[in-house]
Amino acid sequence: MSIQPILFNGAWVPSQASGTFQAVNPAVQQPMPQVFPVSSWSEIDAVIGASAAAAREMRGWPGSRFAEFLEAYALEIEARADQLVETAHAETGLAKSPRLKDAELPRTVNQIRQAAATARNESWRVPTIDTAVNIRSMYGQLGPVVVFGPNNFPYAYNGIAGGDFAAAIAAGNPVIAKGHPCHPETTRIFGEAAVAALRSTGMPAGLVQLIYRTSHEDGLRLVSDPRIGGIGYTGARQTGLRLKAAADAAGKPIYLELSSINPVFMLPGALAERMEKIADEFTASCLMGAGQFCTNPGLVIVPSGAQGAALTAAVAARFSAAASGTMLAEGVRSSFLKAVQAILGAGAELVTGGQAGGGVGVCCQNTLMQVSAARFLQHPEVFQTEAFGNGSLFVHADSPEQMAELAEHLEGNLTGSIYSETQGADDAACDRLEKVLRTKVGRLLNDKMPTGVAVVSAMNHGGPFPATGHPGFTAVGVPGSVTRFGMLQCYDAVRQHRLPPVLQDRNPGGVWRRINGQWTTADV
Amino acid sequence: MSIQPILFNGAWVPSQASGTFQAVNPAVQQPMPQVFPVSSWSEIDAVIGASAAAAREMRGWPGSRFAEFLEAYALEIEARADQLVETAHAETGLAKSPRLKDAELPRTVNQIRQAAATARNESWRVPTIDTAVNIRSMYGQLGPVVVFGPNNFPYAYNGIAGGDFAAAIAAGNPVIAKGHPCHPETTRIFGEAAVAALRSTGMPAGLVQLIYRTSHEDGLRLVSDPRIGGIGYTGARQTGLRLKAAADAAGKPIYLELSSINPVFMLPGALAERMEKIADEFTASCLMGAGQFCTNPGLVIVPSGAQGAALTAAVAARFSAAASGTMLAEGVRSSFLKAVQAILGAGAELVTGGQAGGGVGVCCQNTLMQVSAARFLQHPEVFQTEAFGNGSLFVHADSPEQMAELAEHLEGNLTGSIYSETQGADDAACDRLEKVLRTKVGRLLNDKMPTGVAVVSAMNHGGPFPATGHPGFTAVGVPGSVTRFGMLQCYDAVRQHRLPPVLQDRNPGGVWRRINGQWTTADV
Repeated sequence: MSIQPILFNGAWVPSQASGTFQAVNPAVQQPMPQVFPVSSWSEIDAVIGASAAAAREMRGWPGSRFAEFLEAYALEIEARADQLVETAHAETGLAKSPRLKDAELPRTVNQIRQAAATARNESWRVPTIDTAVNIRSMYGQLGPVVVFGPNNFPYAYNGIAGGDFAAAIAAGNPVIAKGHPCHPETTRIFGEAAVAALRSTGMPAGLVQLIYRTSHEDGLRLVSDPRIGGIGYTGARQTGLRLKAAADAAGKPIYLELSSINPVFMLPGALAERMEKIADEFTASCLMGAGQFCTNPGLVIVPSGAQGAALTAAVAARFSAAASGTMLAEGVRSSFLKAVQAILGAGAELVTGGQAGGGVGVCCQNTLMQVSAARFLQHPEVFQTEAFGNGSLFVHADSPEQMAELAEHLEGNLTGSIYSETQGADDAACDRLEKVLRTKVGRLLNDKMPTGVAVVSAMNHGGPFPATGHPGFTAVGVPGSVTRFGMLQCYDAVRQHRLPPVLQDRNPGGVWRRINGQWTTADV
Repeated sequence: MSIQPILFNGAWVPSQASGTFQAVNPAVQQPMPQVFPVSSWSEIDAVIGASAAAAREMRGWPGSRFAEFLEAYALEIEARADQLVETAHAETGLAKSPRLKDAELPRTVNQIRQAAATARNESWRVPTIDTAVNIRSMYGQLGPVVVFGPNNFPYAYNGIAGGDFAAAIAAGNPVIAKGHPCHPETTRIFGEAAVAALRSTGMPAGLVQLIYRTSHEDGLRLVSDPRIGGIGYTGARQTGLRLKAAADAAGKPIYLELSSINPVFMLPGALAERMEKIADEFTASCLMGAGQFCTNPGLVIVPSGAQGAALTAAVAARFSAAASGTMLAEGVRSSFLKAVQAILGAGAELVTGGQAGGGVGVCCQNTLMQVSAARFLQHPEVFQTEAFGNGSLFVHADSPEQMAELAEHLEGNLTGSIYSETQGADDAACDRLEKVLRTKVGRLLNDKMPTGVAVVSAMNHGGPFPATGHPGFTAVGVPGSVTRFGMLQCYDAVRQHRLPPVLQDRNPGGVWRRINGQWTTADV
């Protein structure tokens, strides 16, 4: 039994493993052949050291260097597309097409290329110049960034290929990628692509390193190490909060995307106008990828009475008729069923599903639950338990006022949606509701399901705690996601020739800069 | 003995005090006549409730409303200038002129007016629009902000009048001001001005509230209350870190400015060129305001040998000749002397000063210490103890390489300065040093002392932990300081008439917006 090496300082080296693990193919419920290491602290320590050395070497490098690496990396990934699709499918159970091949992999290289463009055009730096006092500032390198990827996006959020990774590199930082144990071989292939890109673009060997697993204790030690600049984490809330506590205590910026149930409010006029269409939209959104999305609509607020009953019945019929998707892992299924039991135990009624099975391999029946708003308001915390998977809870509210009251009791979420009648019949109710919901969610949608995160500048993939660790950042969309991984660097009376090029008087690259309060691409 | 009321929900109401305190005039070392309350949790709880109600009422309000309030407030402050100067002088021992009347008070109203302009022009919101997908985002109200002011700036950082206060209001948030116990009567006068401005501009009664003191336990409870949106804190490290731990655990953004010793590196060419001038500049910066500035130069790295000895002697002579300033409070003096003892105890040599006395009231001798770089590097943490007051530590380094090594061992600081010869003789040493120092400080200066914080857009009054809690923010300079107190709000497919005005297609106010990656003041 040979143990896979780790990617340390530009080379694949044998792991000083304190243990091993294998991923499981969830469709056939059999272990994958490759054996991966649990890294010991001594090798994590060496990885951090190599990352810090790379950060030192790259101090002051122009964005174009990082753009070249990211662009080369995107090509190397595309060259391995078939291998990545086969492997991720086996490790995650996610469909090869359209999901992996036609959606997630293109999104992933697109994110990397957007990050490259941002590094190249320096827009993430927010160059700011006040000429009267000769004070200038921009964002610069933060230092080594640790990126923890989640189980549900083997490409687009992978610690070595996803949005946090690309953003951290674009900001001039080395990355220590921590792969997710559900898809280590997929992650290893990205590592091969990264090494090829590192070499072809002449980047420091420690720019990208990869470990697969650590003990809990070593994970906390890693994020609080003095040599670390910052952390990106996407995953379960409990682990994320432990990492946050450790990083916070050490004064390390940590950006977390933790959990979200993405409330959807159905106003009466919308249901009167297009109930069947809404039932279709909701079902597609909720069951896609076995519901394993951070933006899955896990809570739906409907009008009580005939309308809510009709929508519930329409969705229940669709849920019963649809096959269950294969889940990522047995742990995901058991967490899902446990959350369903918690919600039912608090007084919700099971409409359909609720048991394991219904599809291929590791799976659960498509699950719909319902509860009255009055009951929900008695135990708002329990009813907001995230059931990560192909299920949702419908809450029947007696009035738009009660919908707004429900919104006041929501935790922070990534998204919140309002469906309303298209000719204005719901506008008053929508206005009232929106004022409350706006404070609870990062992204507010109209007449649209929350799944599907467009990778554009104005996207906010973030939201108030506990959906994330801070309401001011987005994990998706440049340049904002890149700026997170920078430190603000001010130059006060620093001589012109010592300034970073982007802060010098001349601006040959036409970088957008804020000079004396006005945005411009001109010279000072 | 009557106890001063607190400012609760627009009115001065008797405090449900759990205790009382009086400030002390440090020049005469006598208690001030006014007696102030230590607020009990029940009244803090009511204050939070009123703040949350104000936040609810102001949801979606345009920036102009907050601009009007801030502008009215600036005028009300100016109308009370004489009273503020007399009172702050008595409570803090700071000179009436130029410090309080001609420097700090004008800076304070200038900060408030800059915040007002930022609220009015909406620039802090970073409005971002991607037209192809109809996704739009901006920063919006965060929620009630608690602002803790420090002892050393009775105006410019006051919880009810300083930079954090003005920034939080400009971002559309109510503020719960926690006055500093060293200058409560000054703070109360600001409260009178705030009430007048609240009334004249028709703002919610809970927009600005004021308490003077809490128990430690209630302070932690306040910053972690679910109704709180965020926190600004300027002050001592130990208290700040306790508040940070509580806020972090509750997922509340907290912006802290904690401590800084502001290293100044003197390169050989600079000293050969202009040693006497540098000694003058340093002495003025280090002794100004009895050294009670967060940007006070508390650590100076000089070349060892004759040059370093000459500068040390020149500064020692100036320190001995200058009168000691009155310190803010007995606690400041005892902390200063304790820090001096810690530094001497680790092996530094006392050059001059080191004892209480030397001026009027609470004061210490101007204090200069020195140590070799080799010794410093044996105990870098102890030698970086902040001695907040009129003192500094000179470190004698054997080479530019050793200066860079010292820089590698620095904690995060607000500022770092490099003095170099004007014709380029020090450029190689400066380049080497700058690469390291850049990663350790928020603001890098050339040939300039760090005291004096220009209130401009490009200023970074911030820096890496433990100087602050996060290397990406500045406490001074709009719009950045305002954006801290916002949450990122994204609108996905939201109907045009429901969008905030600043995100609608038309842009009659000419707000700077980033549309499809380009900054513009035009319509979509």
